[in-house]
Amino acid sequence: MIYCDYAATSPMSNLALDVYQEVAKGYFGNASSLHDIGGKAKDILENSRTMIAKLLNTEARQIVFTSGGTESNLLAIDTLLRTSHLKKKKHIITTEVEHSSLYYYMKELANQENVEVTFLSVDHNGQIRLTDLEKAIQPNTCLVSIQHVNGETGVIQPIKEIGERLQKQGIPFHSDMIQSFGKIDIKHLIPFVDCITISSHKIFGPKGVGALYFSNRLSLRSHPVSTNHEHGLRPGTVNVPGIAGFAAAASETINNLVQNQDHIQYIRELFIQKLKIEGIPLQPIVTVNQCPSIVGCISDFVQGDYVMLEYNRHSIAISTGSACAIGATEVPKSIQPFISDYDEGKRFVRFSFSHHTTEKDIHEIIKASNRIFNRIKEERQGYDKEING
Amino acid sequence: MIYCDYAATSPMSNLALDVYQEVAKGYFGNASSLHDIGGKAKDILENSRTMIAKLLNTEARQIVFTSGGTESNLLAIDTLLRTSHLKKKKHIITTEVEHSSLYYYMKELANQENVEVTFLSVDHNGQIRLTDLEKAIQPNTCLVSIQHVNGETGVIQPIKEIGERLQKQGIPFHSDMIQSFGKIDIKHLIPFVDCITISSHKIFGPKGVGALYFSNRLSLRSHPVSTNHEHGLRPGTVNVPGIAGFAAAASETINNLVQNQDHIQYIRELFIQKLKIEGIPLQPIVTVNQCPSIVGCISDFVQGDYVMLEYNRHSIAISTGSACAIGATEVPKSIQPFISDYDEGKRFVRFSFSHHTTEKDIHEIIKASNRIFNRIKEERQGYDKEING
Repeated sequence: MIYCDYAATSPMSNLALDVYQEVAKGYFGNASSLHDIGGKAKDILENSRTMIAKLLNTEARQIVFTSGGTESNLLAIDTLLRTSHLKKKKHIITTEVEHSSLYYYMKELANQENVEVTFLSVDHNGQIRLTDLEKAIQPNTCLVSIQHVNGETGVIQPIKEIGERLQKQGIPFHSDMIQSFGKIDIKHLIPFVDCITISSHKIFGPKGVGALYFSNRLSLRSHPVSTNHEHGLRPGTVNVPGIAGFAAAASETINNLVQNQDHIQYIRELFIQKLKIEGIPLQPIVTVNQCPSIVGCISDFVQGDYVMLEYNRHSIAISTGSACAIGATEVPKSIQPFISDYDEGKRFVRFSFSHHTTEKDIHEIIKASNRIFNRIKEERQGYDKEING
Repeated sequence: MIYCDYAATSPMSNLALDVYQEVAKGYFGNASSLHDIGGKAKDILENSRTMIAKLLNTEARQIVFTSGGTESNLLAIDTLLRTSHLKKKKHIITTEVEHSSLYYYMKELANQENVEVTFLSVDHNGQIRLTDLEKAIQPNTCLVSIQHVNGETGVIQPIKEIGERLQKQGIPFHSDMIQSFGKIDIKHLIPFVDCITISSHKIFGPKGVGALYFSNRLSLRSHPVSTNHEHGLRPGTVNVPGIAGFAAAASETINNLVQNQDHIQYIRELFIQKLKIEGIPLQPIVTVNQCPSIVGCISDFVQGDYVMLEYNRHSIAISTGSACAIGATEVPKSIQPFISDYDEGKRFVRFSFSHHTTEKDIHEIIKASNRIFNRIKEERQGYDKEING
């Protein structure tokens, strides 16, 4: 099977698996235990924290490990809201294109009496308008949360420009960087954000592990459930083998970032070019600023889920959007700038590549695409002929 | 090093590690993805769910996987509170001896305007009084949460008797069974509870995985963050390799339950007997109904943390209580029935055994105990002599 759903999840690298196994066997202690077996686990934990911190050009004490991307997003929002000293109504600004874990949490918060949430829409390129952001800011705005890369379209938000504006006004800025970490150099953006979310299983690390970076500018208040874990920000025995595997995978991925980026950019261009040359009725969403690993496409006819299943039948794994939103009947807000109606929205499919995707894979995908869409076209023509006599 | 801190965490079994590795390599898909790679991961997930359900004599759809024991406890409470139809003030009954993750969450809830929490104390055996429970019940009591086995003393609460009383009144009953699962047969208690918490890393499974059982009697309301994961009760990509490792470890542990219990009972008795015969100044907490794997002890003199460090110096890993409460200065409420003052409480240490603990380990521990306490006694006597001239 050719796997083109790396934006949903990725297999663990051999290195990450080896590290996981070594730590689970040799350093199994509870990192909070004060005996040597606990101490050794704690050393591995702190070493992993330093590794992640270095990759972000930050300090170890700014990194908090969690059970994954979703928990990270919710913990970031909760921690930043708790840290705000506002007594009256708290105002949050986010976007309509956030990952479902964050978007629906914001919707939930918006129902609370003492919270108000502004959801920014995106322009024809899928990006928020900085003027919209500026207009949305209120005296009680205590948090802005805007993703870096969108999981459906790959659109990159202008994090630096957003951060510069917010810093001037002293408003904490969280960014969900799950889809960009390991795929784009995010280190240079760290000075412009106060908190970011990253996740392990999207970058060839174990599932069930994520992390947050918090800027030193913040004075965080600890989690309500009294805890000695993760700087008091999160309860629960720390998953040291998982975290060590994450740190290994992250280092491996980021050390090869430039090389992988070049490869994925090439794969992306080859795919888009081939779709065009072969006249395959899949229109890739191409705009000004995108993460190369994600290619959202609108098929000219037939719904996305049908297209996805046809590719599956041809041993190619693609998706119709975020795996976390499977079952949702709405068209994702992120693709609305690139479609003209609901029907087009339902014809969306996503290909997402990695450094494991080969040129040969692309040729196979194109071959399968021809077979899939030729059959669909023939069926349609045959049907039309029959109908029209 | 002789590890006697199995109540804090345990190493992964070879089987659990093999299963983790096999699933992480061969079934890495996102269990929510609709292509075959996602489908295969979903199969492993559902197979693991069935395995855990069978061990509890329940149905697969009653099992919800989480990121660990603490998340399970908090998710249980949140889900059961959300499920209650009470519009007015909600009343919860719990105990003073719950694990810190649950106890402090209850304290936090008790601060909320629309929640009231009653904390039951324990009797001279460390158990709650059923009459106290009955008296505490109010018309608006919508949840009772009482642990099965205490992590510091091993005291077993009368879950069946509690459940029988609560069922008559239709009050949902949650029990934290993290310390009993895999150590005591909990299957026969399932008819008497509505929800239980279990955790993987205490029974030789991977860290970062836990589960909840919910009774079919409940009509649960889904998590506020819209999700297609875990019956809508929890967001976040499911950690399928971790869950498969958990299911393997749980099956292995429970299939050997009787045999392991016999061994641990023998080890416990040998340890307690040897402490006495050798006149070691450690008084084991022995009461009417205890989980054999946990032996809490009060030393005749010197503080628990000093004792723990001395054992550590002799390559024996013990603890001064729950690893999750390290740093807490309070004496755990669970040991109060067994001490006469604060100083005694500070002299508490915990030995916790498993089927890996050998007779030879116990002899080594006793030898080390003699060395440790003889040295302490000599130091004390020398000091007293010097002082008294």
